[in-house]
Amino acid sequence: MTVRTASARWEGALRDGNGTMEFGSGAFEGAYSFSSRFEEGPGTNPEELIAAAHAGCYSMALAGGLSREGHEPDSVYTTAKVHIDKVGAGFKITRIELATEARVPGVDEATFQEI
Amino acid sequence: MTVRTASARWEGALRDGNGTMEFGSGAFEGAYSFSSRFEEGPGTNPEELIAAAHAGCYSMALAGGLSREGHEPDSVYTTAKVHIDKVGAGFKITRIELATEARVPGVDEATFQEI
Repeated sequence: MTVRTASARWEGALRDGNGTMEFGSGAFEGAYSFSSRFEEGPGTNPEELIAAAHAGCYSMALAGGLSREGHEPDSVYTTAKVHIDKVGAGFKITRIELATEARVPGVDEATFQEI
Repeated sequence: MTVRTASARWEGALRDGNGTMEFGSGAFEGAYSFSSRFEEGPGTNPEELIAAAHAGCYSMALAGGLSREGHEPDSVYTTAKVHIDKVGAGFKITRIELATEARVPGVDEATFQEI
């Protein structure tokens, strides 16, 4: 069993406050705010971390699947779009879209789609 | 509606390959590998991004809830632990634990627990 950790500190109220999120590995610490989360302000937001996690997991898993079938990829590139919508009194992630492009020497389209 | 994006590129096979994850905002780009994901190698992994997103969302939401009830917090600090276990042929997130410490001037324990 593996356990991954991270933490986040928020200071102040919702709209005027601000926070930081930090990975347990130390690879990243960054600021977020109401504006960077629900508007277009500078900084990061939890939803793009979810997007990066999905893209990262999918690229790695597809590379694994291709390799297992003897088609080691040069590269697998995935973009994730996380949609946040106002639902009732709050916000919800209503959809996550993944799009992948892969460069795989010698594989044909049918085999790729099957994997 | 807001859409947040991120991307990830993986190169090569599962165990010997390596990847990068990148936030759409540009706030972070970092390397990950089989070792940083399933062992204790250097680099990040999708699971600690999920952990950071949960911690970030929870700290912000609790600060919002406290503020709405007239108890603006000095700080809300949340750690998230994402447990990954081997389930069947693959890995699954089997549990996410959140622990929060908040500094909230003038609030009593009962009111805090209720919020």
